[in-house]
Amino acid sequence: MRNILPRSVEQMSSLLSTLPSIGPKTANRLTFFLLGRQEGELEEFGQAFINLRKNLVTCSNCFLIAETDPCVICQDKQRVQDKLVVVEEPLDVLALEKAHFDGLYHVLGGQISPINNVSPDDLKIKELLSRLEAGQFKEVILATDPSLEGEATALYIDDQVNRIQKEGKLKGIKITRIARGLPVGGDLEYADELTLARALEGRSTYSARD
Amino acid sequence: MRNILPRSVEQMSSLLSTLPSIGPKTANRLTFFLLGRQEGELEEFGQAFINLRKNLVTCSNCFLIAETDPCVICQDKQRVQDKLVVVEEPLDVLALEKAHFDGLYHVLGGQISPINNVSPDDLKIKELLSRLEAGQFKEVILATDPSLEGEATALYIDDQVNRIQKEGKLKGIKITRIARGLPVGGDLEYADELTLARALEGRSTYSARD
Repeated sequence: MRNILPRSVEQMSSLLSTLPSIGPKTANRLTFFLLGRQEGELEEFGQAFINLRKNLVTCSNCFLIAETDPCVICQDKQRVQDKLVVVEEPLDVLALEKAHFDGLYHVLGGQISPINNVSPDDLKIKELLSRLEAGQFKEVILATDPSLEGEATALYIDDQVNRIQKEGKLKGIKITRIARGLPVGGDLEYADELTLARALEGRSTYSARD
Repeated sequence: MRNILPRSVEQMSSLLSTLPSIGPKTANRLTFFLLGRQEGELEEFGQAFINLRKNLVTCSNCFLIAETDPCVICQDKQRVQDKLVVVEEPLDVLALEKAHFDGLYHVLGGQISPINNVSPDDLKIKELLSRLEAGQFKEVILATDPSLEGEATALYIDDQVNRIQKEGKLKGIKITRIARGLPVGGDLEYADELTLARALEGRSTYSARD
């Protein structure tokens, strides 16, 4: 196609189309939407991009992205101090916060995945073990994704915790895994067989009077 | 939810979620994707936003967004000078360029829509009539959307052109409307009844030997 659009419009469109889930058509639509915005709003957008990573640190304790080190969650003494959830990504922390989890976090930074060249050493697993050895935690909840890689990562961490437990470096830590089952509001009839099998495996005693 | 994310991250996420087709979850995903980019790339994004509307003008001839007035299309004497396509939005020009249309354009800036408070006076229809009166064009192709409002807009323009034609201000201009029919690669069985009725109405003589 001949270049009929102004360069700034072309550039915006091609930048936007490098973002995940935004194809060239959506990028064009977004660009023309932005062209209809006030100059001040575009300035605000621009500054947000430029400043996004400025003043950001990774919490050296839980590896969440933060403004301070340790982060606000690690600093918060109101939170339950002996429960630790292990997650893959910062976005998982957001999701658990929305679900009102009130303990502490450990962000691995991904999942073990030989196909993508991610080995246990690329994740913050050693750091997790050190935190556990420090003796503060009674329960470690493995909340990696319920996918092949997520399960493998959970399994690997469980192995490692058991190993250092045998070496006598920690004692009495309970390892749990978040439940896999039918999503709330879902429909049993449409559930896939693996989810259904997990839901059956993970069944619990039931009394409506509780 | 408690504010656990850095302010720059929150701000980026809330800005992105003001864009069309981007909800809060997508905005979060995009923000965390951007966090993984180089500082230089973020700077480039930021500058693209800040500079997007700088040095842009609207072509006073065809009302396309452009860097020069008249725009590159209006300036291009290689293009067919007596064929004019009337479209609603600049994005429509892009689409027609991809389809290798080689005449000139007129961008209305929207469609007549009483529900959205857009009357004919809000569109560049008077300017279109002036261009036609100047005498350069032999054919006007109405390429507004094949929607209720798009058809109404096409009808209104047709009326207006006929009116000034009767007043003797122009002569011999042919008004056409882009064909509405089955999309190429589509499936007749799944076409809606209106499209199918239009496709029948718009049938043409056929000879495979042509």
